[in-house]
Amino acid sequence: MTTVIVQGATRGLGLQFCKALASRNNINVIATGRTADTSQDLMDLASNAKNVHSFSLNVTKEEEVKSLSEKIQGKFGSSLDLLINCSAILHPSGKGETSLRDVSGQGLEDTLRTNTVGPLLMAKYFSPFLLKGQGRFGVQDEKSKHSGVLVNITAKVGSITDNSLGGWYSYRMSKAALNMATRNLSIELGRGRNKVVCVSLHPGTVNTDLSRPYHKGVAPDKLFSTEQSVNYLMNIIDNLSVKDTGKCFAWDGSQMPF
Amino acid sequence: MTTVIVQGATRGLGLQFCKALASRNNINVIATGRTADTSQDLMDLASNAKNVHSFSLNVTKEEEVKSLSEKIQGKFGSSLDLLINCSAILHPSGKGETSLRDVSGQGLEDTLRTNTVGPLLMAKYFSPFLLKGQGRFGVQDEKSKHSGVLVNITAKVGSITDNSLGGWYSYRMSKAALNMATRNLSIELGRGRNKVVCVSLHPGTVNTDLSRPYHKGVAPDKLFSTEQSVNYLMNIIDNLSVKDTGKCFAWDGSQMPF
Repeated sequence: MTTVIVQGATRGLGLQFCKALASRNNINVIATGRTADTSQDLMDLASNAKNVHSFSLNVTKEEEVKSLSEKIQGKFGSSLDLLINCSAILHPSGKGETSLRDVSGQGLEDTLRTNTVGPLLMAKYFSPFLLKGQGRFGVQDEKSKHSGVLVNITAKVGSITDNSLGGWYSYRMSKAALNMATRNLSIELGRGRNKVVCVSLHPGTVNTDLSRPYHKGVAPDKLFSTEQSVNYLMNIIDNLSVKDTGKCFAWDGSQMPF
Repeated sequence: MTTVIVQGATRGLGLQFCKALASRNNINVIATGRTADTSQDLMDLASNAKNVHSFSLNVTKEEEVKSLSEKIQGKFGSSLDLLINCSAILHPSGKGETSLRDVSGQGLEDTLRTNTVGPLLMAKYFSPFLLKGQGRFGVQDEKSKHSGVLVNITAKVGSITDNSLGGWYSYRMSKAALNMATRNLSIELGRGRNKVVCVSLHPGTVNTDLSRPYHKGVAPDKLFSTEQSVNYLMNIIDNLSVKDTGKCFAWDGSQMPF
């Protein structure tokens, strides 16, 4: 069996990743989310697709992540082929800061906790599983095989180099820090005989709750459905190899600057 | 009078910035630090140099930053020429993480709070002062004048692009996020008629408490005293103009990738 974990799976991209992955053969899709126990969409999916297994997880609480890793080891073993970190908020208020006036220490901390600390905690507890994966995702390099793939969903606005508009302090800062986490993980998990390919992926502007207040300015052909975006991203994931590790790619496969 | 604020001034680079700045003419140096009331070095400086004014400030507490901004406005007016954000910890344990095993959610959050949230809160409450500064630091561009300068002390290891060694998760991530803050600030504070030049500066490897456990591997001529490093950095600050805003420079003036 192939095993994948989608973290932040109750809605948006995470939910769609679960749907797309569940349609593959011989796969267990482990879906986690803060509200996994009450999210109707995820419950519907898990009852329709028997290979989708839903677990409640507040990814900002280290004890919960640790305890889930033990539970999953008991149920599914300690081999994992793919981890996708999807959880993200724009800001606790639901609106990105347009200026410093909107910045609050609490808002910044909460955003960093969900978007940055959570994904790194997932990497801490599940990278031992990824190092024991069967390399079922991506393309195996002739010279250097990989056992697993770790994906952090980032955003174009998390690129410091590319930032020419400003605003969205908390979200931008959380994604820049997440990109650093990806890079660090690619180094640590690329050293040994078993390797994990670690990348940040930018999904484009997707029609989700997170971005909904901001769709007015987006050209219709640049506003993706979750299905479109996940198609693009799965295509990238299915073509990843060790040489891609530590990089950041946009939905169209182009490499993004940090 | 010229007014500057050095945040994180009880030791290391911050303390040395205060000493270097206090020796200039017609200047008020406002020194803040979590332990400003008990730091012997800063108290000695403030009693020897009458133009150094020390204030206790925990930069992670928004109410304290706000309240200090009101106090400073009362005492020194609302014009500020330079703000230097120095506060930083490597990790609450004093040691940077060598691997994921050492990563803890709490350690990461605490590091982000001091190194990233604090400097942004300073920017929030003191950028209105910098916008009313007299442009006493840097070089005035013929076409586009600036009123103030905001410096975030970053680190080479905060460059995602440059990261080839890994480790130090919390510190690296906090500085990458801080570099994003610098970039965002440069945009927001560069729009109006009054402009603030915002930069991230890398001080080199400096003989401070923060880096002390790691000096073994550093070539003697690359391990700077705080005096050397602050000399280099003040030279950069004295030559900044509007065209430099949003960038990251190392101690030798070279521009660093994000």
